[in-house]
Amino acid sequence: MGEPERPLDALNNSRGKRVIIELKNNKQFIGKLKAFDIHINTVLEDAEERVNGEVTRKVGLAFIRGDAIVLISPA
Amino acid sequence: MGEPERPLDALNNSRGKRVIIELKNNKQFIGKLKAFDIHINTVLEDAEERVNGEVTRKVGLAFIRGDAIVLISPA
Amino acid sequence: MGEPERPLDALNNSRGKRVIIELKNNKQFIGKLKAFDIHINTVLEDAEERVNGEVTRKVGLAFIRGDAIVLISPA
Amino acid sequence: MGEPERPLDALNNSRGKRVIIELKNNKQFIGKLKAFDIHINTVLEDAEERVNGEVTRKVGLAFIRGDAIVLISPA
Amino acid sequence: MGEPERPLDALNNSRGKRVIIELKNNKQFIGKLKAFDIHINTVLEDAEERVNGEVTRKVGLAFIRGDAIVLISPA
Amino acid sequence: MGEPERPLDALNNSRGKRVIIELKNNKQFIGKLKAFDIHINTVLEDAEERVNGEVTRKVGLAFIRGDAIVLISPA
Amino acid sequence: MGEPERPLDALNNSRGKRVIIELKNNKQFIGKLKAFDIHINTVLEDAEERVNGEVTRKVGLAFIRGDAIVLISPA
Repeated sequence: MGEPERPLDALNNSRGKRVIIELKNNKQFIGKLKAFDIHINTVLEDAEERVNGEVTRKVGLAFIRGDAIVLISPA
Repeated sequence: MGEPERPLDALNNSRGKRVIIELKNNKQFIGKLKAFDIHINTVLEDAEERVNGEVTRKVGLAFIRGDAIVLISPA
Repeated sequence: MGEPERPLDALNNSRGKRVIIELKNNKQFIGKLKAFDIHINTVLEDAEERVNGEVTRKVGLAFIRGDAIVLISPA
Repeated sequence: MGEPERPLDALNNSRGKRVIIELKNNKQFIGKLKAFDIHINTVLEDAEERVNGEVTRKVGLAFIRGDAIVLISPA
Repeated sequence: MGEPERPLDALNNSRGKRVIIELKNNKQFIGKLKAFDIHINTVLEDAEERVNGEVTRKVGLAFIRGDAIVLISPA
Repeated sequence: MGEPERPLDALNNSRGKRVIIELKNNKQFIGKLKAFDIHINTVLEDAEERVNGEVTRKVGLAFIRGDAIVLISPA
Repeated sequence: MGEPERPLDALNNSRGKRVIIELKNNKQFIGKLKAFDIHINTVLEDAEERVNGEVTRKVGLAFIRGDAIVLISPA
């Protein structure tokens, strides 16, 4: 298996790809993962907000504060 | 692609431009991004508060504590 | 533009002036900004509490713990 | 004006005097400010609890954890 | 007055005595204060839980995580 | 009395014994205390979940994140 | 008994195995534990979301922010 992978390595593999981010306030943002840091502060491009599966808003570029985030997964 | 961009670089590109800030208490503040720091403490100029899309108040200069923030995007 | 301004510089410009502080519990305190620190612990003079725009109490000097604060703006 | 005052200096001026402490859980404690530290952990003497302005309990000495506190002001 | 007392000194004076601990979840635990640390992690001996003034449970030894605590006072 | 005991020493005395852990979400987990660290991250063996005193689930080994914990006591 | 085990060692034993992760928002994610760090930021492979025991969604790879997590146990 080699060295155990670290969570931020896995996140790094999603850089430039579309991801879905779920927030503690139950909103979701979907967009291309442009940047993140160790606090999981995250920037999405071409982002849109979804609530209950419905697109509720286009936000373009979105800076999301890490501590608001629950989960990031491929879109 | 060069070096991976960091979230605060992306935020820096919005300096001097109008942004919308969404808070954990569901309020939004819109104004010109004047300053921010690593805690995402943020200062807006010519800011106004919006609740459910309605302008509810003009606040002029607004210092927003970083940990109250969920998202920052171009207005 | 010279050096980018930092949020606490902007706050420093309000020192000695009347500000409105909004808290996570939805209360507002209005008074003269006497002191603050990097945690945004803040001291107001001649402070009064407002709830839904109504003055509900005069508190004189008020020490407000930074992590209770959402926003500070000129009164 | 000399050096800008720091919030904990202002709090220090209340040492030995009666203060009112408001908590995030909406309770208030009133007593003589005996001690505090940089976390705003605070000790009151001859303290009593008030809920909605009513004295609900005498607690004598009260150690209050700083992160439970919203506001401290002269009683 | 000599040196200003620190909150943890006051707490130390209660070591070995019965105290009441109020939690953020509104429960109370009463017991003999056996140990605490700078996070206010606390250990009570012969502890019992009270809800609305009623003894709801005997827990014997209780380790309470500091960040769950609002207040500690003599029982 | 010798040196004052520290909370984690008390917790260490419960290592290998059955404990009950109460969480901020009001669930309880009961099991043999296998490991803990300074954040109070905790591992139980032969653990079961209880809600309102009823066993709701067997979970075997349980890693519990420290900041979710309110109280640990002997089972 | 040798050296006392640490919680992250126990978690490490689950690496590559299926685990169930319970979140503070009451959702559960089940998948193969691929990576975790000291903040308990965690990555699951072949993950699915469950609410009240029902599979509500397949998410494939899931990065879960540590502070959203209550419990991790073998699936």
